[in-house]
Formats: sequence, structure tokens, C-alpha cells
Amino acid sequence: MERKEISKSVLKRLPGYLSYLKSIPEDATPYISATALANALNMGEVQVRKDLAMVSDGGRPKVGYLRESLIEDISQFLGYDNTTDAILVGAGKLGQALLDYTGFSAYGLNILAAFDVLPTVEETSAGRHIYPMDQLESFCRQNKVLMAIITVPPSHAQRVCDRLIQCGIKAVWNFAPTHLDVPKGILVQNENMATSLAVLSMHLQAQIKDKK
Amino acid sequence: MERKEISKSVLKRLPGYLSYLKSIPEDATPYISATALANALNMGEVQVRKDLAMVSDGGRPKVGYLRESLIEDISQFLGYDNTTDAILVGAGKLGQALLDYTGFSAYGLNILAAFDVLPTVEETSAGRHIYPMDQLESFCRQNKVLMAIITVPPSHAQRVCDRLIQCGIKAVWNFAPTHLDVPKGILVQNENMATSLAVLSMHLQAQIKDKK
Repeated sequence: MERKEISKSVLKRLPGYLSYLKSIPEDATPYISATALANALNMGEVQVRKDLAMVSDGGRPKVGYLRESLIEDISQFLGYDNTTDAILVGAGKLGQALLDYTGFSAYGLNILAAFDVLPTVEETSAGRHIYPMDQLESFCRQNKVLMAIITVPPSHAQRVCDRLIQCGIKAVWNFAPTHLDVPKGILVQNENMATSLAVLSMHLQAQIKDKK
Repeated sequence: MERKEISKSVLKRLPGYLSYLKSIPEDATPYISATALANALNMGEVQVRKDLAMVSDGGRPKVGYLRESLIEDISQFLGYDNTTDAILVGAGKLGQALLDYTGFSAYGLNILAAFDVLPTVEETSAGRHIYPMDQLESFCRQNKVLMAIITVPPSHAQRVCDRLIQCGIKAVWNFAPTHLDVPKGILVQNENMATSLAVLSMHLQAQIKDKK
């Protein structure tokens, strides 16, 4: 189907639909309606209907969507079908956890290699390679890498980001808790777990204070 | 100092200051000004000045903050000093990666144990324990746990969340890509890595299309 402009809020909901659709047993009825999906995920029916219409034209009145086709349409829309190769810079604890995490492949992400300030190549506990930083440029060019994951300390993140952009990187997944300046055409997606923890911890402190 | 109401956007920036302050070598000058911090993190000076004033009253004109005191003030403000015990429900790939990740302690998070649909206790590769779900209630009550991390499939997340609230959980860190309904007084912080990947992948697809 023709590709429509899509908002970030729709994008946020699509992975949820997909995970639910994939969790339905194989032997269940092959069709699913927007209503059933809305009920299962505790969402508004109108919103689900609109969202699905953005990514698939397979919906039939009174029947719904063929589940397999809808899974395919959403996956394709989200780019999970075309695997994206990425590199990771900063192989500290978080970096290594992400590098060894095998669940990203389901979302079309393939971390080719990690880089860190090292004299020689090292290995993670799962046997993934961590290369010295001076191999970054040649690796990116040889493998035509477009996506990078930044897991360096925040004070190094901007310098690493600039260097990655020089290497041809167009999309940055930033786990360093700091703002990154990038030229037009480059996307930075921030993932700040420290912030999430601060928000949660803040809430608990307030709760405890209220009790006193 | 007296605790002021603080916005989520300030909370988002505080971990960045903290990480930078901690990365400064021990033998550097013991003072740091808001201007120096703003320059280092590529941020506006006025904003940094305002943010710091929210969490510390140790700033001196023309001198700045004593670095060690500022680190202490921000850490205390963010609750990193008082360690929060949490449990994790759903010990799949992501759950186990989080469980084995040793970096959370720096943010005051201590994952006591994980739970999953299991007949008996199992262990992760790092030797952390995963308990059967039927031990959830007694464990939470015995350990007075207030925070839970949800890493189950989205179709199970609401049910798990409801059960956790019954166990006395007040703050939920939700990694399942789905919306969770909770009563007043319970905080849900969503961490949606699948969404982040979808946004990044979307951007790359658009880039590639533009080139054609």
C-alpha cells in the first residue's frame, strides 16, 4: 500500500500490536478485528482502527484482518523485515549487555561489532568482538553501516557522535544521558534509563513521605 | 535544602550533569561553574544555572560549586543514595540481560530477584535467581518491595501489573510495549526499545528512499 506520513505516537503503538498478534496461538481463528485487538490491549477501538488503517489495507468489514497478513504489514512498515546493521561504541557494562542481548534480531537490528578504547580486539562473555577505536572508520566504510548505538560516558558522547557522522552514520541510538548536537538529516533517538530510574525513585520517595 | 517541585524535563537533565561531574579527574580543580558545565555538555548556561539551583544551594558567585558537594546534592536529590529494591517479572532475553546488568547499582537500583512461569527456581548465566511465579506474593511482602520491572510479553503485561499492585508495588518500570492501566498513586514509567528501533529504522528507510 502507499506509504502515508505517520506520527511518532502511532509508531509507538505499532510494536505493541505486533507483539500481541505474534503471541496469539497458531491454532486460533486466522482473523482478528480491531475491536478484539483494542479489548486485548486495553485501548480505544477508534484509535486501533485508525492505526491499523495507516499500515494495512487488508481489513474487511465484520471480519477484520487476516492475522498473518497484518503481522506482515506491520513488520514491513516498521522495517523489521529489512535487517539494519549497526555498530555499538562504548563496551562498558551497558554496552556489553546490549551487545550480548539476542532479542534485537526480532526487531531487525543486527549489531555487527562494538568499539572501545582498547589496544587490541577483546571478546564479551558471549563471544562478541570489541574492536579498538582506530578501526572504527575502516569498519564503517567497509560494511556501509548507517546506524550506531552510543553507550560511552556522557562526557565523550558528542565527540564519538561527531566521529560516527564522519563515518557515514545517519541514525544514532543514544544511551548516554546527554544531549547530542547533530546536523540536519541525522536522527538521534535518546534512551535514558538513568532518567527513568530517577522518575521512579522520585515517585517512591514522595509516596514514603506521604505515609509519614 | 528545602525540596522544590521539579519538572520531568529537569529530572531528565540531572543524570547528565551527574555523569559528567563524576567523569572529571580527581586531581582537577575542586570547583566547577555552571558556565563550565554548560560548555562541557553543550547546553545553555541559563538552563544549567536554573537546574543546579533547584537541587543545590552550594553555588558561590564567581567560584561555582564545590564538585564533590554538587555530586552529593544531585545524587541525593535523584534518590541514588537510598538504594531501591526491585523485582523483575519475565525472565526472557531482555529480562535476563537487565537482571545480569551490574550497572544499575550506580543509580541506586538493586534487583533482588526475578520471577517467571517456571516449575522450580532457575539461574541466569551470571548466577542470579529466577523464581516460579507462585512465590511472587510472599517474596514481595517479606521483602517489602515497592518497585517492579516488567519484561513479560505485552499480552501478559496488564495481568502481571495488576498482580504486582496487589503485592504492594507502587512504581513499575515497564519494558513491555503496551499501555498499562493503573490506579491513582501508582507510577508507570515506560521504556520502549522496540519503538526507539522503529523510529530509527523509519528514518533510515526515508534516507535511503531520498537517495534513490
